[in-house]
Amino acid sequence: MLGPVNHIAIAVPDLAGAVALYSKIGAQVSAPQDLPEHGVTVVFIQFPNTKIELLYPLGEDSPIKSFLAKNPSGGIHHICFEVDDIEETGRNVLEAGVRILGNGAPKIGAHGLPVLFAHPADFCGTLVEFEQADGT
Amino acid sequence: MLGPVNHIAIAVPDLAGAVALYSKIGAQVSAPQDLPEHGVTVVFIQFPNTKIELLYPLGEDSPIKSFLAKNPSGGIHHICFEVDDIEETGRNVLEAGVRILGNGAPKIGAHGLPVLFAHPADFCGTLVEFEQADGT
Repeated sequence: MLGPVNHIAIAVPDLAGAVALYSKIGAQVSAPQDLPEHGVTVVFIQFPNTKIELLYPLGEDSPIKSFLAKNPSGGIHHICFEVDDIEETGRNVLEAGVRILGNGAPKIGAHGLPVLFAHPADFCGTLVEFEQADGT
Repeated sequence: MLGPVNHIAIAVPDLAGAVALYSKIGAQVSAPQDLPEHGVTVVFIQFPNTKIELLYPLGEDSPIKSFLAKNPSGGIHHICFEVDDIEETGRNVLEAGVRILGNGAPKIGAHGLPVLFAHPADFCGTLVEFEQADGT
């Protein structure tokens, strides 16, 4: 089963500018956090029901550099859905004819939990992350 | 102040295929609803904390036809944030240097409530809809 939308990730070319903009419209914005193992600096924008994660490239091999090259103003990078059982979700996704990125096995995501990414071309043009719910 | 993320709108080129896919992964999917005055057929995918609105073109003048021409697999079309005061939000958005689409005044959106859309080039490459919260 699908749980909540954990986050909406938006890649931005100007992190300070994005923080200023969201602050200006009354959003609750966190301090930036560097995640060098994921090649991004993130800022969380907390809504009452979910959050946006602003993604800004960190390091030479940042996975979002190519996205920003194609989308110079930034854009929505992915949506993350929490799931009860990441292994079952992986099977359901494959049975639906959707490719899983990488080797098909869950890996540890930015929140320290197992995740899978579905291929956007097979999923309504949307990069979808499935994250094992942490059970709390 | 910003309220909840009301919905994430995803334009799809194959509504039945998208419904089948989301159903397959355990999502709660509504019956399609035609909104001829907005040029779309919508399907709601209900999550515990927010919803996705699948958008499919309806009629010759559908506003999402050009989006699908540019994004043939589909893609995230916009995000909608609820706000307490749509007039105040409009002023804050303009003060932040962000253009408002159309004539700048709120108009009635797909849910029958006043809405504004911010120009994506001024808003991290994201088409953002602000919707007056209905107070319930």
